[in-house]
Amino acid sequence: MSEPKPTYRDAAHPRLLAVAQRLLEAEGLSAVQARRVSREAGCSVGTLYNVFGDIDGLIIALNAGTLALLGEAVKAGASSAADASLESRLCALALAYMRFAVANPARWEAVFKHRLPPGREVPASYIEDQSRLLAVIEAAIAEVVPDVGQRQAAARALFGAVHGIVALALDDRLGGRLKDELEAQMAFISGVIARGLPTGA
Amino acid sequence: MSEPKPTYRDAAHPRLLAVAQRLLEAEGLSAVQARRVSREAGCSVGTLYNVFGDIDGLIIALNAGTLALLGEAVKAGASSAADASLESRLCALALAYMRFAVANPARWEAVFKHRLPPGREVPASYIEDQSRLLAVIEAAIAEVVPDVGQRQAAARALFGAVHGIVALALDDRLGGRLKDELEAQMAFISGVIARGLPTGA
Repeated sequence: MSEPKPTYRDAAHPRLLAVAQRLLEAEGLSAVQARRVSREAGCSVGTLYNVFGDIDGLIIALNAGTLALLGEAVKAGASSAADASLESRLCALALAYMRFAVANPARWEAVFKHRLPPGREVPASYIEDQSRLLAVIEAAIAEVVPDVGQRQAAARALFGAVHGIVALALDDRLGGRLKDELEAQMAFISGVIARGLPTGA
Repeated sequence: MSEPKPTYRDAAHPRLLAVAQRLLEAEGLSAVQARRVSREAGCSVGTLYNVFGDIDGLIIALNAGTLALLGEAVKAGASSAADASLESRLCALALAYMRFAVANPARWEAVFKHRLPPGREVPASYIEDQSRLLAVIEAAIAEVVPDVGQRQAAARALFGAVHGIVALALDDRLGGRLKDELEAQMAFISGVIARGLPTGA
């Protein structure tokens, strides 16, 4: 007779996530609040806390879903250019990243904007999601940066470089011109990086 | 007999800015609110609106001050390496940018975090402040990217690259390790860029 409770939790989990995602996409991260999400999902705030711990737990679950989708998009980009030159492979990764951000600006922004309260640790699974993304870049540069430590640092820097160009461009919200200009910048920085990586150092 | 009003405005301007800066540095951008800033500056909300138009006008004035300081820091970095190699010059710029961000995280973050209400245009003077910053990078790469249009696009991409690495690192808040790691990443990306820029293309 202890079945109903887990079933109720299991049913609330995807509904709360779906409502949170809709609010995030429509109104931004600040709209994702415990009271509002639970009301629109037709459950109590207590149920939300029971399922996700607190509103930050729900946002982390939402962001983990975004990171997983982003990881798939970037991996698909890597596969599409698997046999091409280093520059083409890096460009495929950069374009995949950029197109995901342009197509899902609110979800993408929430991954970088969300701050946990002081003292609260990011869950290990979330760190693993981030590492998986960096691993795709590491694989792409493995031949030119054979040292593992250097390669991890390089992948992090290259990710930051592409991320920064995308973030500044999306901040500017250049409208129609945005995507063409951004694609050109992705091609440019990929070329610079491919030529400039310390080959076999 | 119309003297007193401008004098009162002139006196309130620096006080309001100083209070806003203190609140920003102590509690972040969300603490910079019209009611609180005017109360702590010892004037009415009406005076704040009279001087800056609204709270966004005050934040833009604050951010313009930050951009001016950042511009001076980056220009000083450029001067210190004026006769060095392309890699050393780019690294001096990247380090100057990074060190400013690490030393003034709240002010630096506010420049990129602040969003104007929909339909409100960024003032021309603010765009000029940003252009002056990009001009320092353009000057550093002028010899290797002679075409003006390409050079402007390249400077914007390189700025984004350095900005992204700094932004992600500051988000992580790695504590003590942060500055050494970031300096290494600045040196790494500067080397990649210097070797990879399309010389004379």
